[in-house]
Amino acid sequence: MEITPREMEHMNDNPLYNTIGIRIYEVKDGHARSRLRPNKDVCWPFNQPHGGILATLMDTTMAWSVLTRIERGYNCVTINLDIQYINTPKGDSFTCLARTTHRANRIAYTRADILDEKENLLATAQGVFRIIREML
Amino acid sequence: MEITPREMEHMNDNPLYNTIGIRIYEVKDGHARSRLRPNKDVCWPFNQPHGGILATLMDTTMAWSVLTRIERGYNCVTINLDIQYINTPKGDSFTCLARTTHRANRIAYTRADILDEKENLLATAQGVFRIIREML
Amino acid sequence: MEITPREMEHMNDNPLYNTIGIRIYEVKDGHARSRLRPNKDVCWPFNQPHGGILATLMDTTMAWSVLTRIERGYNCVTINLDIQYINTPKGDSFTCLARTTHRANRIAYTRADILDEKENLLATAQGVFRIIREML
Amino acid sequence: MEITPREMEHMNDNPLYNTIGIRIYEVKDGHARSRLRPNKDVCWPFNQPHGGILATLMDTTMAWSVLTRIERGYNCVTINLDIQYINTPKGDSFTCLARTTHRANRIAYTRADILDEKENLLATAQGVFRIIREML
Repeated sequence: MEITPREMEHMNDNPLYNTIGIRIYEVKDGHARSRLRPNKDVCWPFNQPHGGILATLMDTTMAWSVLTRIERGYNCVTINLDIQYINTPKGDSFTCLARTTHRANRIAYTRADILDEKENLLATAQGVFRIIREML
Repeated sequence: MEITPREMEHMNDNPLYNTIGIRIYEVKDGHARSRLRPNKDVCWPFNQPHGGILATLMDTTMAWSVLTRIERGYNCVTINLDIQYINTPKGDSFTCLARTTHRANRIAYTRADILDEKENLLATAQGVFRIIREML
Repeated sequence: MEITPREMEHMNDNPLYNTIGIRIYEVKDGHARSRLRPNKDVCWPFNQPHGGILATLMDTTMAWSVLTRIERGYNCVTINLDIQYINTPKGDSFTCLARTTHRANRIAYTRADILDEKENLLATAQGVFRIIREML
Repeated sequence: MEITPREMEHMNDNPLYNTIGIRIYEVKDGHARSRLRPNKDVCWPFNQPHGGILATLMDTTMAWSVLTRIERGYNCVTINLDIQYINTPKGDSFTCLARTTHRANRIAYTRADILDEKENLLATAQGVFRIIREML
C-alpha cells in the first residue's frame, strides 16, 4: 500500500516514538527511512542510546518498509530480528535505512542499517516479518 | 563480581528502566532475572510492549548475567543480539531470565527468555558480549 | 507425526548425512538428538568440523524436532538460523540436541546445542521453520 | 593481507571445498566472491543444496573477506552467524558475495548474499569474526 503524508504524520504521532525520539520520514517501494534523536531518558548507561533503543528503531523502520509492500487491511509482526552492534553511537542524531529484500506469500525479509551524522555504520540488522490480517 | 543489594538498588534507579518499566531483581553466578511492567507509552501499536522494548529487556538482563562473571573495573557491550518473537505479549507483567552460557577471554555468550505471568514463552534470544575496561 | 524406527533408519541413509557423518538417533515429542562423527573431508581448515558443518547438523536436527510436531503430508523449511560458535570443537564425536519451543500455525520455533564428549558446549542456535505441504 | 593468485589456487584445493563444490575466485579489499556448484551428495532432501551447505558457503566467503583486512600471521574464527533463507535454491550454480563492513580491533563484522544464476536472492547472512594469532 502507499502511505500518504497525512497517514505518516498521524503514524509518527504515537507515544512510543515520542518517548524514544523516533520519526519516520520516507516510506516507499519497499524502503523506509527514519531518524532517532534519542531522549536523554533512553541514553543509559553510557550516555548513548541503549542497544535496545537501536533495536526498536530498526525493527519499526523495517516494519514500515514491509507495510509499503502489503495490501490495506493487513499488518506485520516481527518473527525474528538479528542485530550486529558495530560502533559506539556518538552524537545526537542517527539515521536508519531499512528495506524489504523479498516477500514470499505471508513472509517478508528485511535489512536495516543505522548511521551516525558522519555516515559511520553503527549497527546492522536482518529481520523476518509475518504478514497478518489487521484486527479491527 | 558480586553485586550487592545496595548496588542493585542503585543500578535499578536509572532513567531507561524507569521510562520503560524494567526492574532487575536477581543477579548471581551467571544468571539474572528481571521484570517488565511496561509503561503505556512503550506499548504501541498493539497495546503490547513493542518488540524493541522486549529486546531492551533481554539485552540488559543478559548484560547483568555477564557482569556477575567479570572483575570489577570491567563492563560489557553487546556485539550481537538474535531474537525470536514467539507469542504475542499479553498481560501487565513479564519476566526475563538470562544466563551466561560461556565466557572465553573477552567474549561472553548468553541466552534469555521472556515469559508472561502464565509461563508462556514470548521471546527467546542469544547474545554475544565483549568485555571492556570500564571508562572512568 | 510419530517417526518409526524403520523410517528413521531409512531417513538416516541419505547422501548428505553419509558425506558429512551425521546420524539422527532419537526423535520424539518435539525433541531430536543426533551425532556427528565428521568425515575428515569436512574438517578444514583447523582439522575440526567446519562451522558450516555444525550449522548443517543443527539445522537438520532442529528440522527433525519440528517434524515430530506436524501432520503427515507436511514438511518444513528453514526461514532463519542464528548460530553462536562458543568453543573450538575437539574430538571425534559431537552430540546435537534440538527442540521445538513453540509452534504457531505454520511457523515453528526451535533451539539447538552441540556438545562434545566431555559435555562442553560448542555451539548454540535458534531457528525458525515454515511448515509446508509436502510436494509429491 | 593481499592474497596472491597462487595462494588462492592453493587454498581452493582443500577437501571441504572439493567435497561440497565451493570455489573462491575473488578476494580483495574486504570483499570476497565464491561459487557453489553443489555436488549431488550435499543436495538433500529436496535435490537442492542443503541450508547448512549454503551456511558453509557464506561462512567461508565471509572469512575470506576478513582475511583481506588482517595481517599475515593472523587468522579468523566465526563467533556468530545469522542466516535468512529467502528463496528455494534452483539451478546448478550459485554465487556468494561477502564483505567486511567493519573491523574494530580483534572483531570483524561481515555480510553475505547468495544469488542464483538469474540473480534471485536466495539467502542473506550477517557474521561476526574474532581475529586470532595463527597457530603454527
